[in-house]
Amino acid sequence: MLRKQDDYIMIFQDIFRTTQPLAAGEPGMKPKNKLSRVLIVGGTHGNEFTGAYLIKKFEQFPELIHRSSFETLTLLANPQAFTAARRYINKDLNRCFLRQNLEDSKLSSYEDLRAKEINHLFGQNGKTPVDFILDLHSTTANMGVTIIVDNDEPFNMQLAAYLNYVSPSVKVYSSGNSGRSHNSLRSLGRFGIGIEVGSVPQGVLNADFFLKTEAIIYTILDYLQQYNQGKVPHFPNTLIFYRYMEAIDYPRNERGEIQAVIHPQLQFKDYEVLNPADPMFLTFDDQIISYQGNSTVYPVFINEAAYYEKGIAMCFTEKHQITI
Amino acid sequence: MLRKQDDYIMIFQDIFRTTQPLAAGEPGMKPKNKLSRVLIVGGTHGNEFTGAYLIKKFEQFPELIHRSSFETLTLLANPQAFTAARRYINKDLNRCFLRQNLEDSKLSSYEDLRAKEINHLFGQNGKTPVDFILDLHSTTANMGVTIIVDNDEPFNMQLAAYLNYVSPSVKVYSSGNSGRSHNSLRSLGRFGIGIEVGSVPQGVLNADFFLKTEAIIYTILDYLQQYNQGKVPHFPNTLIFYRYMEAIDYPRNERGEIQAVIHPQLQFKDYEVLNPADPMFLTFDDQIISYQGNSTVYPVFINEAAYYEKGIAMCFTEKHQITI
Repeated sequence: MLRKQDDYIMIFQDIFRTTQPLAAGEPGMKPKNKLSRVLIVGGTHGNEFTGAYLIKKFEQFPELIHRSSFETLTLLANPQAFTAARRYINKDLNRCFLRQNLEDSKLSSYEDLRAKEINHLFGQNGKTPVDFILDLHSTTANMGVTIIVDNDEPFNMQLAAYLNYVSPSVKVYSSGNSGRSHNSLRSLGRFGIGIEVGSVPQGVLNADFFLKTEAIIYTILDYLQQYNQGKVPHFPNTLIFYRYMEAIDYPRNERGEIQAVIHPQLQFKDYEVLNPADPMFLTFDDQIISYQGNSTVYPVFINEAAYYEKGIAMCFTEKHQITI
Repeated sequence: MLRKQDDYIMIFQDIFRTTQPLAAGEPGMKPKNKLSRVLIVGGTHGNEFTGAYLIKKFEQFPELIHRSSFETLTLLANPQAFTAARRYINKDLNRCFLRQNLEDSKLSSYEDLRAKEINHLFGQNGKTPVDFILDLHSTTANMGVTIIVDNDEPFNMQLAAYLNYVSPSVKVYSSGNSGRSHNSLRSLGRFGIGIEVGSVPQGVLNADFFLKTEAIIYTILDYLQQYNQGKVPHFPNTLIFYRYMEAIDYPRNERGEIQAVIHPQLQFKDYEVLNPADPMFLTFDDQIISYQGNSTVYPVFINEAAYYEKGIAMCFTEKHQITI
C-alpha cells in the first residue's frame, strides 16, 4: 500500500507548521552565486542509522531529491563503519577534515584516507566541488530536530531561521568555537549545515526521526531551489539559537573512570534552563553534584553516547536572539 | 550530600509497591538446598552500561550487596568490550556457554577464552561454583524492567513472580526455546535470571534505569536471604509472563540490507497486543507491511540495536498466566 500525500501531512504535521510552500519572496534576495551542486551526506558516523539509511533510500529513489536548478549528490561517508555498526573504524571521520591533516601524507588510517578521498571528490579543489553540504546525524541526547550551524555565515543562518520558522520545534545550535567549522566533513562545502536528531540509540533506525529528517531534507532542497530562482520565501526574520560555550566532563576517578551519572532531573532536558545550584550529576556514592556557575546555561548533547570517550557529559550553550 | 532513605523510597516508589519487606512466610517453604554463593554479573555485553557500572559501584561499596546467609560475588564479564564500549570484541559472550563449546579447545577467540575462564571460576565444576547468577542487561527496546527466566525452573519462576508482585510494572519474559537456557552466562548457575532494562541506548548510563536496577538487585538479595532462612514471604501466586515464540527479521533485499523500519505504531510497544493486520514495518518505498499471522502475539525486543546483525527485528511472545 503506497503512502498517500495525506499520510505524509499527518506524519509531518507535528514538525512542520505547513507543508505548503510559503509565498515566494520578491526577487530582492537574488542569489549572488547560484548553487549548482548539493551533497547530502549520511553515515559520517557509521552507527547513526537515520542518515545512512536515508542515503540508501535516496540512492534507490533519486527522483525524491532531484531539483531542476541544481544537481543533488549523495554520499555514505563511512561505509566500513556503517557495515560494522560503529561510529568509526580507527578515528572519528568528522574530525578529520582540518586542512593540514588533509595535506599530511603521514596520516593513513582508514578515516584519514577516506577524508582525503572525500575532499578530492567534493572539496573546493576537488573533481566535483559542492556548494552546499547537508550532513545527517543522530544523537542519544534528547535534542529533537536540531539544525547545526558551524559559524555565522549569513546563508546558513538564513536557512536555519527559515527551518525554525516553518517548524518552531526545530532548534538551532551554533557549534561556534568548538572546532567544527574547521574539521567537519561539511566544512568542505561553500555552505553547509548539520542535522542532529534524537534521542535515538546508536545502531537503531527509528521511524519517527527517519520521517522527520526526510521531511526536513525535502524542505531544505525546496528552499535551495527557491534561492536559485531568487524566490526565497518571506518570513519573520528573528531567530533564537543556542551557541556553544564549553564542554563539561563527567566526574572521574584517578583512573579516568566515570563516577557519576547524569542526574535524573537533567537527563533528556536538552535546551532547557540550567540555573546555578541545579543538580547535574548523581555520584555512585549517592551525592548530588550541582551546577556551580553564576549564570544560566542551556545544556545540549546531554548523555551523548559517543562523547563518553571524548570526556563530554554535555555542552553548555547560551541562548541568543538575533535578527537575520 | 548523602542520599537519605527517604530519597530512595521516592526514587523507587514507581517501581516498588512497598519498600518494606512483606510479612515473612511460615517455614513451610524450607529451602531444600540453601544458597551459599550468589554472583551478580554486569557487562556481559560491554556497551550495556547499566550493569557494568553497577558492578563498579558494588566493587567500591561491597557492603551494599552483603547478606549474612550467603556470599555475594561480582563479575564484570567482558572487560575488554566494556573498555571499547562495544557489545563484544570477537563474538557475543552471552552465546558462548554451550557445554560442547566450553570443552572445545579449538575455540580461542577472546570471548571463547573468557567464557572458559568464567566457567572455570563459577561453573558447577569450577573453583567457586555459584548457586544463583543475576545477569544485568539493557536493551534499546522499550521493555521497562524485565525479568528473564530461561526455563520453567520453579525457583526462578517463584522469584520472578515475587518481583512482579512487589512491583507490578516488572514484566516476566520466558526465553523458552530460544536457546538461552544452554548458551547464556547465567546458565552456569544452579539458578539464575536476567534483568533487562530499557529503552536505553548502547553506551549510555541512564540514571532512571540505573536506580531501578539497583533497587531490584537489593530486593532479590533480600529475597534470597529470606529463602535461606526459610522465610520466603507470602504473596498471591499467580503470574502473567510472556513466552518466546519466534524471532521476526526485517524485510531485506537480495544483499541482506534492511528495506524497512519498525512501523511508528509498533515502535516502543513492547508487550502490547499485536493483532492480525496490524502494521509492523514501513518500507523505504512507503509501503506498510502488516502482521500476517492468525493469532494475537505480544512482541518484545522491538528494534533492539544488537539484533540487527542477528536478523531479529522483534521477538513474538505469547501471554500466559500460571499459578506458581
